[in-house]
Amino acid sequence: MRVIGIDPGLRNLGWGVIDVAGARITHVANGICHSDAGTGDLARRLASLHFQLTHVFGEWRPETAAVEHTFVNKDAVATLKLGQARGIALLVPAQFGLEVGEYAPNAVKKTVVGVGHAAKQQVDHMVRLHLPGVKIAGADAADALAIAICHAHHMQSAGRLQDALRRAAG
Amino acid sequence: MRVIGIDPGLRNLGWGVIDVAGARITHVANGICHSDAGTGDLARRLASLHFQLTHVFGEWRPETAAVEHTFVNKDAVATLKLGQARGIALLVPAQFGLEVGEYAPNAVKKTVVGVGHAAKQQVDHMVRLHLPGVKIAGADAADALAIAICHAHHMQSAGRLQDALRRAAG
Repeated sequence: MRVIGIDPGLRNLGWGVIDVAGARITHVANGICHSDAGTGDLARRLASLHFQLTHVFGEWRPETAAVEHTFVNKDAVATLKLGQARGIALLVPAQFGLEVGEYAPNAVKKTVVGVGHAAKQQVDHMVRLHLPGVKIAGADAADALAIAICHAHHMQSAGRLQDALRRAAG
Repeated sequence: MRVIGIDPGLRNLGWGVIDVAGARITHVANGICHSDAGTGDLARRLASLHFQLTHVFGEWRPETAAVEHTFVNKDAVATLKLGQARGIALLVPAQFGLEVGEYAPNAVKKTVVGVGHAAKQQVDHMVRLHLPGVKIAGADAADALAIAICHAHHMQSAGRLQDALRRAAG
């Protein structure tokens, strides 16, 4: 099962792809879609992110996707901006017919590090431990890989639960 | 010049198309793209809005677009939700190669009604006055037509300014 994790952002949208086989996960690819102010107005930046992320999906063909479910409380303008980038991050997997899991940052940290209030460096460290030898494109790509790992774990748990229920019923 | 105005929203995304020839504006079409919770998860709802709005652009072929630039201050969750729908509203015109104007609600009201703090009914009334005989699909479509009218006025002002500058330079 190929999983993509996405950490949405207007300037830097991180993505990370992993393969999951039973309890074993392996790194496939990761990167960052950029759209800085030089790309043009907001609409053009969103179109650029959509184009880049569509290319990532076309190249790596993930079978399931997960996006960080977060909102900044700093101010409404920043939240709206993030929402717009997040709209693109959700749209692309849906256009490829994929279900999209959503995980709060604390849920991602809890799965990957073991505690919900882990520091960013700890997440980065654990991602490298989970995926030995991985070269990470940047902080947003590391977060995206953490989201993918979190999604893989949750799917496995759900799978194990279904197996147990099936056994109990049989 | 054919102008589309868009009033973004996740459940109801209003759109309105007008033709502008000099000072004369005429109604072309208006409607609402729906995606209620029954459409599926958030990603699927955004994909549905993208599909519907792309169809509107394909059918009516606007040459320039404007989107309301607003954010709700109610809470971060509502603002994020609006941002996601707004991401789609900005993406589609950019995918058709159009420039996208953005106007704050007060700027739209000021242009259409004459005052920035006008009530919703006043905007609806003035839209009907500007576009005699128009049948409006709903409140969000009326807002979208108001945004289109606002964009048309601003483009005319910009055009007049450029004409004046050209005359002064010549």
